[in-house]
Amino acid sequence: MANVLTLSLNPALDLAISLPRLALGQVNRTDATHLEAAGKGVNVARVLAALGHRVRVSGFLGAANDGPFLRAFEAMGVEDDFLRVAGETRINAKVAEHDGRVTDINGPGLEIDAAAFGALVERLDALATDCEARPDAVLIGGSLPPGIAAEDLAALVVRLRGHGLPVWVDTSGAALRAAIEAGPTAVKPNEVELADWAGRALDTSAERLAAALRLHAAGVEEALISAGAEGVLWISRRGSWLATPPRVAVASTVGAGDTLVAGMLHGLLEGHAAPQTLAFATALSAESVRHLGVGNVHAEDLSSLQQQTRVRRLDDADTGGALA
Amino acid sequence: MANVLTLSLNPALDLAISLPRLALGQVNRTDATHLEAAGKGVNVARVLAALGHRVRVSGFLGAANDGPFLRAFEAMGVEDDFLRVAGETRINAKVAEHDGRVTDINGPGLEIDAAAFGALVERLDALATDCEARPDAVLIGGSLPPGIAAEDLAALVVRLRGHGLPVWVDTSGAALRAAIEAGPTAVKPNEVELADWAGRALDTSAERLAAALRLHAAGVEEALISAGAEGVLWISRRGSWLATPPRVAVASTVGAGDTLVAGMLHGLLEGHAAPQTLAFATALSAESVRHLGVGNVHAEDLSSLQQQTRVRRLDDADTGGALA
Repeated sequence: MANVLTLSLNPALDLAISLPRLALGQVNRTDATHLEAAGKGVNVARVLAALGHRVRVSGFLGAANDGPFLRAFEAMGVEDDFLRVAGETRINAKVAEHDGRVTDINGPGLEIDAAAFGALVERLDALATDCEARPDAVLIGGSLPPGIAAEDLAALVVRLRGHGLPVWVDTSGAALRAAIEAGPTAVKPNEVELADWAGRALDTSAERLAAALRLHAAGVEEALISAGAEGVLWISRRGSWLATPPRVAVASTVGAGDTLVAGMLHGLLEGHAAPQTLAFATALSAESVRHLGVGNVHAEDLSSLQQQTRVRRLDDADTGGALA
Repeated sequence: MANVLTLSLNPALDLAISLPRLALGQVNRTDATHLEAAGKGVNVARVLAALGHRVRVSGFLGAANDGPFLRAFEAMGVEDDFLRVAGETRINAKVAEHDGRVTDINGPGLEIDAAAFGALVERLDALATDCEARPDAVLIGGSLPPGIAAEDLAALVVRLRGHGLPVWVDTSGAALRAAIEAGPTAVKPNEVELADWAGRALDTSAERLAAALRLHAAGVEEALISAGAEGVLWISRRGSWLATPPRVAVASTVGAGDTLVAGMLHGLLEGHAAPQTLAFATALSAESVRHLGVGNVHAEDLSSLQQQTRVRRLDDADTGGALA
């Protein structure tokens, strides 16, 4: 098992609201509301800890409402290394109506000043040079809070890479473009984010493959592209791979990407073979969409889902075809 | 200054969300979200504590997310006597769009079982019979949680009245009707709630006055009716009074009723004359609608607002007319 550090620079508390139909301008009553620690870094940590890794979580939390995070970290069995800043962590409301329509209302996040960012960098330097605490990989997940620019994220990637650490980045927009320039170990754009990086629409599988190959050629060792039901594209020195997940009944795709990232990190850190790594991560991600939250590593039919996941090598005619 | 106990059987955390326009089925971004301890009992406690009274707050809180309440109680300077129950206190989202439309999404609240209700009754018995802690008045505010029936509220009113305590109740619907049957010291329906109790529409001032007189005759010592800009009707052994508030720019009427209740309790507990009591409470309530939250007892122009509040005695021809 490995040591993994996940960073959430702009975490959120998710407020899940379910009701028959939202009437605007009215007083609506809901069956249930639930507040949960969220954010890509926290989700990836949750899966990796469930898989048995030693996980440390860090980033910035508002000191005024960190209770749900503390409880989540304790339940997940991860080490809390978050810096506290004055104020409240944002709350993102997710309103799910019974017809399936989901309305997200996301807050901007806490303003992070230069002093707080400096304190985080200092802490990461200390972790990277401490032989006990040094992580085997770092995952930076999610959006950037007010006060942290895309260039700051790029500088963070460069700094962590300078410590010899593998750095995975899962973000979007300007932050993703800046991170890619900085030479991260891995990124995981979805098809929309990949098109955004490529600067043009990617309408066919061939166009997406070409863009993913360019991403790898641009210096990203592990270029992972999640394209929903179409599957997962993985370009690496281990080859170019496409995984097609089994069909499952979709309840919620929130958390599927985070589960994929965690599954890939797991396989690579454990030294599993490439097709097994991709099949496991894709199957676990498919497992996650059947319910709210991240993939359940203890799902009874996980090995069956993995067997139903089709993995093809795209760049080797001899071994082409179904491998899984 | 007096000892006051406020009871919130179904408190909530209010999540205030402000955004230009809510697009359903989309990801919306908001300028700011803010989570705050809420509920009528908490609001009344806030005003009374600011006015210098010794306030104890009680009821039921979910143990899993009581942090914002603890901070609020500390900031308010009130004593926390809430019983903790397993689970989360509900979160009520209030989505305010820039055009003024407000959409409320309210959760059902924590299920309260018979054991928890019994523990609260036991605690209230103990407070009522402790010469140090015995309150001079009790305010029961807000809705009832799942598990507590209107009859349970009525029994609670009877029990507290049996201890010789003044009991004010601010609730609505079946809970209000049951509480009125139980003979509380005071209730404060708005015009809609009064009509609901009366069992018919109350379209004119005369019809509302007649219903308020019936409410008083039914055994409610202080019958307070809040009717927005039209004013406040107060039927009591001190006479029948109507207060007309000064015109103010309306920002939010949330908290105005709670402020009115607190202002009335303040005047009566301090032994102020009837017209001064009503004028102060009405002016403070008008102050509250100029901004979010309850009335600010330190507002610079509060005495000016009070002078602009018109108080008339309705049942005494000799002193009729403007008194304030």
